[in-house]
Amino acid sequence: MGSSFGRLFCVTTFGESHGGAVGVVIDGCPPRLPLTVDEIQRDLDRRRPGQSTITTPRDEPDRAEILSGVFEGQTLGSPIGVIVRNLDARPAAYAEFKDTFRPSHADYTYEAKYGIRNWQGGGRASARETIGRVAAGAIARKLLAITSQVEVLAYVRRVHTIEAAVDPSGVRLADVESNIVRCPDPTTAATMVARIEEARRAGDSLGGVVECVCRHVPVGLGDPVFDKLEADLARGMMSLPASKGFEIGSGFAGTTLTGIEHNDPFAVDAGGRVRTLSNRSGGIQGGISNGEDIIFRVAFKPTATISQPQQTVDRHGQPVTLQARGRHDPCVLPRAVPVVEAMACLVLADHLLRQRGQCGA
Amino acid sequence: MGSSFGRLFCVTTFGESHGGAVGVVIDGCPPRLPLTVDEIQRDLDRRRPGQSTITTPRDEPDRAEILSGVFEGQTLGSPIGVIVRNLDARPAAYAEFKDTFRPSHADYTYEAKYGIRNWQGGGRASARETIGRVAAGAIARKLLAITSQVEVLAYVRRVHTIEAAVDPSGVRLADVESNIVRCPDPTTAATMVARIEEARRAGDSLGGVVECVCRHVPVGLGDPVFDKLEADLARGMMSLPASKGFEIGSGFAGTTLTGIEHNDPFAVDAGGRVRTLSNRSGGIQGGISNGEDIIFRVAFKPTATISQPQQTVDRHGQPVTLQARGRHDPCVLPRAVPVVEAMACLVLADHLLRQRGQCGA
Amino acid sequence: MGSSFGRLFCVTTFGESHGGAVGVVIDGCPPRLPLTVDEIQRDLDRRRPGQSTITTPRDEPDRAEILSGVFEGQTLGSPIGVIVRNLDARPAAYAEFKDTFRPSHADYTYEAKYGIRNWQGGGRASARETIGRVAAGAIARKLLAITSQVEVLAYVRRVHTIEAAVDPSGVRLADVESNIVRCPDPTTAATMVARIEEARRAGDSLGGVVECVCRHVPVGLGDPVFDKLEADLARGMMSLPASKGFEIGSGFAGTTLTGIEHNDPFAVDAGGRVRTLSNRSGGIQGGISNGEDIIFRVAFKPTATISQPQQTVDRHGQPVTLQARGRHDPCVLPRAVPVVEAMACLVLADHLLRQRGQCGA
Amino acid sequence: MGSSFGRLFCVTTFGESHGGAVGVVIDGCPPRLPLTVDEIQRDLDRRRPGQSTITTPRDEPDRAEILSGVFEGQTLGSPIGVIVRNLDARPAAYAEFKDTFRPSHADYTYEAKYGIRNWQGGGRASARETIGRVAAGAIARKLLAITSQVEVLAYVRRVHTIEAAVDPSGVRLADVESNIVRCPDPTTAATMVARIEEARRAGDSLGGVVECVCRHVPVGLGDPVFDKLEADLARGMMSLPASKGFEIGSGFAGTTLTGIEHNDPFAVDAGGRVRTLSNRSGGIQGGISNGEDIIFRVAFKPTATISQPQQTVDRHGQPVTLQARGRHDPCVLPRAVPVVEAMACLVLADHLLRQRGQCGA
Repeated sequence: MGSSFGRLFCVTTFGESHGGAVGVVIDGCPPRLPLTVDEIQRDLDRRRPGQSTITTPRDEPDRAEILSGVFEGQTLGSPIGVIVRNLDARPAAYAEFKDTFRPSHADYTYEAKYGIRNWQGGGRASARETIGRVAAGAIARKLLAITSQVEVLAYVRRVHTIEAAVDPSGVRLADVESNIVRCPDPTTAATMVARIEEARRAGDSLGGVVECVCRHVPVGLGDPVFDKLEADLARGMMSLPASKGFEIGSGFAGTTLTGIEHNDPFAVDAGGRVRTLSNRSGGIQGGISNGEDIIFRVAFKPTATISQPQQTVDRHGQPVTLQARGRHDPCVLPRAVPVVEAMACLVLADHLLRQRGQCGA
Repeated sequence: MGSSFGRLFCVTTFGESHGGAVGVVIDGCPPRLPLTVDEIQRDLDRRRPGQSTITTPRDEPDRAEILSGVFEGQTLGSPIGVIVRNLDARPAAYAEFKDTFRPSHADYTYEAKYGIRNWQGGGRASARETIGRVAAGAIARKLLAITSQVEVLAYVRRVHTIEAAVDPSGVRLADVESNIVRCPDPTTAATMVARIEEARRAGDSLGGVVECVCRHVPVGLGDPVFDKLEADLARGMMSLPASKGFEIGSGFAGTTLTGIEHNDPFAVDAGGRVRTLSNRSGGIQGGISNGEDIIFRVAFKPTATISQPQQTVDRHGQPVTLQARGRHDPCVLPRAVPVVEAMACLVLADHLLRQRGQCGA
Repeated sequence: MGSSFGRLFCVTTFGESHGGAVGVVIDGCPPRLPLTVDEIQRDLDRRRPGQSTITTPRDEPDRAEILSGVFEGQTLGSPIGVIVRNLDARPAAYAEFKDTFRPSHADYTYEAKYGIRNWQGGGRASARETIGRVAAGAIARKLLAITSQVEVLAYVRRVHTIEAAVDPSGVRLADVESNIVRCPDPTTAATMVARIEEARRAGDSLGGVVECVCRHVPVGLGDPVFDKLEADLARGMMSLPASKGFEIGSGFAGTTLTGIEHNDPFAVDAGGRVRTLSNRSGGIQGGISNGEDIIFRVAFKPTATISQPQQTVDRHGQPVTLQARGRHDPCVLPRAVPVVEAMACLVLADHLLRQRGQCGA
Repeated sequence: MGSSFGRLFCVTTFGESHGGAVGVVIDGCPPRLPLTVDEIQRDLDRRRPGQSTITTPRDEPDRAEILSGVFEGQTLGSPIGVIVRNLDARPAAYAEFKDTFRPSHADYTYEAKYGIRNWQGGGRASARETIGRVAAGAIARKLLAITSQVEVLAYVRRVHTIEAAVDPSGVRLADVESNIVRCPDPTTAATMVARIEEARRAGDSLGGVVECVCRHVPVGLGDPVFDKLEADLARGMMSLPASKGFEIGSGFAGTTLTGIEHNDPFAVDAGGRVRTLSNRSGGIQGGISNGEDIIFRVAFKPTATISQPQQTVDRHGQPVTLQARGRHDPCVLPRAVPVVEAMACLVLADHLLRQRGQCGA
């Protein structure tokens, strides 16, 4: 259960990392949106394994196939089915996990919940599940761009203890894509890469923080109570593998300010538009976008798969020492960047249609 | 839109702070659950205004009335309707906000989204909206306690820069309720109270962090992808007024650990149960509860309503200086505690029923 | 569970016939819709008991109270809560049903499903549950009228074996309301009334057919697959107490035509609009409205509550003879008319907003 | 929108008749259900075109491929993805429909709703969309059989004016499958086949009625208000292509009985189980199954595609005469039988899990 997201722009993902394919169905996309498979592939390529020296060497081309919903280069308004075949699956590499629970993985909880699990990979807990999110996110991104010039851009803000100095308002995609760690600050990026390579050599792994900025979001998206825009963003981000925290605008740090320091004064800009002079609200007030940049951060823990020996138990309750081999990312952050963007696009696209439905604009 | 929460244990709240009443409908509650209005009132009393010197003086008894769904002391399995009348509403006190947007409030975004707003209070952005959550949460709490001895307990972990030293595993309700700030560390609590009173005297406000621990949660709650247990908790918490951040287990701080340091080793306890030796996962792995304590934290910004003059604009785009009067909390944290608990109970109760539905246990 | 209806215009009803109140929450209504409680009351008055000699003598004024969501005569876009108190409840009159299952009522199935039931009336199976539907339907009707001049009109087409000759395209509300049985053919109406009074005197009851016509429905409402407009109408109508059948356009009778006889030829009218020359499709093709009148019929069984002795069993499995007293309608049709209209309005309003959301018009 | 069905056993279909594939995702299926692709194929074979002389000659093997959710012969509890490739697509045969609206088809309404349509076939209105329903229904059927020995069996009750005499309680699958029209009365079946072949020779088409019986359904499935079991069945059946009516139990005919004649008396059978002595309720009372056979009927109109010349208009509003060629069924009834069964299984499986979730049994 729980494989669907969105009320009007509704996506449903499916697929295990070592079954036939992973995929997604996008239901509710507006019709006549120009769309090619290349636009989906572009984001998938940013997410795919084997793209650099600091990602898993699993070699998956991750080619998307559109099965339905697009006709002569335009969306039909019907469900868009997209699949990506699993090619470089090596179930044998996972044989040791058949009976042993990897620490801080989902092996134990899946087994306890379902009484069965696909031990040939991570099942639904595999990062491959995010392929469907990224494919759907690419379509949502197109919709947002065409309808409202919305731009969604994420980047690595911190790896381990290395924090980049970044001004969210000025970051461009080219900056982010200029290096393999996807940090728009090139000097810091180099340090991050070195730290990640060091961790990999040590059989260890690292976490960090991804920051995301959403520009030109129309005023009025989001709903007042349970479906506040930041609540849906939080749900989306906390549903990503390895995420441990979410904050918007001033976030946790903002709690050390007083109200006088924290409130965003209103003013009217030259164009007559109501603006805030600061943006500690992070672009959302009362659950609804206020037209300023939406800025949030997501914490990702260090990858659970490490090569050092670890203490664990097997399915029969016996203590064992596990030394995982297998192919994995020593740091998920670089590949998490397009996934964070995809989830942000899905949330915004859904609320764009909801707003049009309820309020007619 | 967006006033409902939960798939099987489904709650819908309604009501503005200055309309006739606020309320909630709980649909999908299991039948034959013993329930009295007193059990609902107990949590409402912890939430109600005027309960101490550091909360708003608005004097609302907030007496709950059960309109349906309970018969001879037991739930019927039909929707439970609960309302609380608004009594101490003073619309005149809000007259100055009719045309002026309070900084970091929802006034502007509501006006922009809907083209209308109930300026006699905060509308749906009022803290009174959480009455429905707390009433429903009390019922969810009862269900969780009876079915699985689940215990959900929140407390103030930090106010402004004053952080309490608390061991989540040992906190008891009596500790939390022993002081008006709801911090289980009495010495720190006194400092917090002093700081809050100081802020109020200065016409200022404070934020902080609420921590919540959920004990005895059965293994297996939560779904692998979009409805991960931590994703639904994050959505619930980030849907609370004034919340700016959510983290689970090791959270943001955990991102500075390496994988070797962060992973939770598995072991089997004396009773033959699989346990983790540490709990940086925060009781959830792969989106599913693992039987350890679920521990998360929520950041609340300083209250937006302050008495100091502030720069803002009115509905006609003219700059104005606003000096708010009105009754408000200088710090929402103490009253947020029961609300955080309520939302956690709603998430857990829903997933308890979902797990029973899909997996039969 | 199952007390909510609609995806964007979403209503949730609650309340038993003998609890404190019945009510409804309407979430997702567009803002700035002019609305007074009188507009709701008008439809409730057409539904209320005791309105004529052929309805139950239970005397309920059924006065609606709007608790939220309306401000200065306009909707706010927030949930609209409406309640109606139960006044003329006489639980004692139901004491005999505490242990005995009334034939063709929900007593047995409620008891079997929930292990408990509110025997002081019909619980959620009471016709009073439809109060919430009618209140919400009145708001949906207003939305439809203002947005698209949609007109929804139902009437009694048949009582027992007495069928009226009615041309759906010409019926007016005044015709329907001109007599207590709500049949727009006055001569037939008189015969129907006589037949119903005869049944009541005999301690018996009657069923029949309600027909409904929806005019000026915009082209394009409804979705191709599971949410076809006729599917949602069917769900809505078959969710009404005592309904046993639904048909649209040519319905069951149309199955005896051949394709040549049944197809609706297309033509272009004087205004350049695509029209069908006949309307066996009933205004919907491929699940989507085509701009012609939507016409459907609903079969209602004879009221289950009769005064003649009946064979049944009690909760202990003992055979008993039941002779029901209590107050009931000898024929639900006249009061079902506004309820059928309400459900049609709810379906159309929801699809109106959905269409605006997905397709922008 | 509207491509999903079910709250816990939730299916989402996708695919046009002439795109790459049609398919379905089943989310929420219980884990450890034994399942092979052959069990899905069995029902697809009963639905597939070209299976007999009275169905369309389009030759599609309709081989199902399971992409996910099944591991070593058992369901994982994760989403089950199933696709069927479109092989015998001949878009050229549809060229004449590119600009012309076929009468009583969805061409016009799709064009009006979306501003675009896949004219190379019927798009989502194609009968091929039901492949996903049948594949999902096969899994639901397996779940129902294993959990509760539920048996769902449909058959052709009437073709045009030829009605079979059938006792629903005695029909077996072998009787239904003994002839190509799927009518369990062999003599009538032969007459039906002759009538269908006659219609095809005349370039005409026929409709009729499918009846369905569900046996051994546990007491207690269904919810009191909007999600009454018959309401969800009605929605499911009225969402099938070409369906025009639905009735349960006594249906439309029952409205000519009086309450005394219509009520089902209760009695206790030899095994101590509460039973009804007649079954005019059709196995459902108050929206909830009562343990008797659930019996309902669905009206299907004559196929809209006929070979006789028809009056219609083109996209430019010009009158044209259309003489359709192409491959089609002269009567959809025989192939509708497995589709009706599939939808019934989907409704029952969803309510089985819902009941387990809310009431624990």
